[in-house]
Amino acid sequence: MFRPYHFTKIVQSLARQQALMSSSYCCTFEDVTSAMTRIRPYVDKTPMMTSSTLNKMSGHRIFLKTENFQKTGSFKLRGATNAVLKIKQDLPDVSCVVCDSSGNHGQALARAAQSSDLKCYVVMPENSPKCKIDAVKGYGANVVLCEASEEARKRGADDVIKQHGGVYVSASQNPDVIKGQGTLGLEIMEQNPECEVIVAAVGGGGMISGIATAVKGVNSSVKVIAAEPERANDCYISKKTGVLTPNPTFPNTIADAVKVSVGKNTWPMIRDLIDDVITVSEDEIKHATLLVWERCKLVIEPTAGVAVAAVLSENFNKSLSKFFPNSKPKNVTVVLCGGNVDFAILPELLNCSS
Amino acid sequence: MFRPYHFTKIVQSLARQQALMSSSYCCTFEDVTSAMTRIRPYVDKTPMMTSSTLNKMSGHRIFLKTENFQKTGSFKLRGATNAVLKIKQDLPDVSCVVCDSSGNHGQALARAAQSSDLKCYVVMPENSPKCKIDAVKGYGANVVLCEASEEARKRGADDVIKQHGGVYVSASQNPDVIKGQGTLGLEIMEQNPECEVIVAAVGGGGMISGIATAVKGVNSSVKVIAAEPERANDCYISKKTGVLTPNPTFPNTIADAVKVSVGKNTWPMIRDLIDDVITVSEDEIKHATLLVWERCKLVIEPTAGVAVAAVLSENFNKSLSKFFPNSKPKNVTVVLCGGNVDFAILPELLNCSS
Repeated sequence: MFRPYHFTKIVQSLARQQALMSSSYCCTFEDVTSAMTRIRPYVDKTPMMTSSTLNKMSGHRIFLKTENFQKTGSFKLRGATNAVLKIKQDLPDVSCVVCDSSGNHGQALARAAQSSDLKCYVVMPENSPKCKIDAVKGYGANVVLCEASEEARKRGADDVIKQHGGVYVSASQNPDVIKGQGTLGLEIMEQNPECEVIVAAVGGGGMISGIATAVKGVNSSVKVIAAEPERANDCYISKKTGVLTPNPTFPNTIADAVKVSVGKNTWPMIRDLIDDVITVSEDEIKHATLLVWERCKLVIEPTAGVAVAAVLSENFNKSLSKFFPNSKPKNVTVVLCGGNVDFAILPELLNCSS
Repeated sequence: MFRPYHFTKIVQSLARQQALMSSSYCCTFEDVTSAMTRIRPYVDKTPMMTSSTLNKMSGHRIFLKTENFQKTGSFKLRGATNAVLKIKQDLPDVSCVVCDSSGNHGQALARAAQSSDLKCYVVMPENSPKCKIDAVKGYGANVVLCEASEEARKRGADDVIKQHGGVYVSASQNPDVIKGQGTLGLEIMEQNPECEVIVAAVGGGGMISGIATAVKGVNSSVKVIAAEPERANDCYISKKTGVLTPNPTFPNTIADAVKVSVGKNTWPMIRDLIDDVITVSEDEIKHATLLVWERCKLVIEPTAGVAVAAVLSENFNKSLSKFFPNSKPKNVTVVLCGGNVDFAILPELLNCSS
């Protein structure tokens, strides 16, 4: 009511800015709700669980979104399924999808393709654990082994496409994949409508940008915080500098699913919609992962442990104090993004100094 | 209708036999329903989960009763809570409960006592893992260490009672404990009313005799099958010979929660109500435990793996063919009795030849 004209101008200007910004996003709230309708018959609504141990340790009310129970063992099935169903719908002549993956996206695309009667080729580094290769094959996909380098994987995928004419489905930068991952955000708000803060790991950024788009569409006051290993802190640096800054070298972290950097498609959403980034050490990741195994009885992979570690860190409360003037316990959803653990890493996981 | 008089005589005779038998049981269906009312506010109704992997591998529809998610990490909280609440009700002057336990019952009694403002002493073998000692202390109980032998544990408990005047609560032979464990059977029939077969591990027999009493009271056609390590096969031998036959020596099995033998209080129910006993090897136990970790993303202890191993064994289908004339897939509930794993056993668990 005070200076109404000026206020209206500000609102108009903000609305214009937001429209401008969102036009640069490859994924909107409506895209996510459409994806939810599309993939619903193919993916599980995973349980939301609680843990009195984590409540006590964090001082907050913690809700665990258990995507480790998702089919194929990770949230990746959401995005892969949305991408495959869109291809079936928009490109009915396509009979084959292709990706390069050492992990969860490969399994997810293989299963999504199998459900839609498409062929699937997954280019995998030759040093991939046998259990992961077997899992991809188990979903009926063709595995093409390549050298263990980013270039060899890209080249391998190109070769497959030249030979078989399939469509490449990127693990984190394909817009339909991002829209599918966003369904996780819709489910969180449905299962935990009082949610005030969501914490999820960030690698390529497909999951967290999809979640943020969905969640802010339901309730713009919910804070979405990214969790990242210190050793793979490209998202933290990018947000701090305002410039997309990939990891200079392929990082060495036990959280294998977030070694990849934020990409061009996810960056605009991460820049505008993610409220903060918290980095955690390798020991914090190992400690949090084992804690969830031991106290919550949930098998999670270390990448899911990154989000748990963030919530247990001092920086989390510092971050919350920026957004919430009081220090009351908050309703916090932590995304347990996956549970695909190669048991060969157990000695490393147990060798935790904290 | 054919030979009605004779038929009536048989029914009367059966009813008399059953009445005679049940009068020798320390736990009836009504006891279990009373226990359920009593303990409901203190224990969780744990989820019933499914697994397409286990369905495929077993050829049946498998439902997993996830007592690994129960407070304190095992079903033992049910019986301990019932016993403690009965003591509070019947013996209001008692201020202390005592048990000897190297594992889950100690944690359960400690927590139950804490909830009821009773003192608790847990006599533990001095070689107990530190994490288990810490867990018992974490629930406010006093830990008394003793030599690692059955005799020393009994003597330790006697000494504590002489000194502090508390009431001894046996892990598997206390009738109120057995009644409390029976609530697991009521929950199974509520959550999976189409259940045809229930498989659970047997040690002292408190859990399975409570379950059988509850389940047969709801639906007498449900088959209850005990699963046991080959190396601790006292229940198998006892059922085969019809004579209670404890393990001759304290057995060496990775399934540490079922090293104890069936006792005098549980034997009559096990003799009459348990439909079959299936024994499994150490490798089968390890394999099944890891399978549940890897594919179901659930941290279970090897003793829970005993029940899973039984369902995956050839003997399971042989056993079913005795009860069901057709070979159709059955609705089978497998009790995952606990998830308290000392991670120090991981190398042994992973060193699995199957």
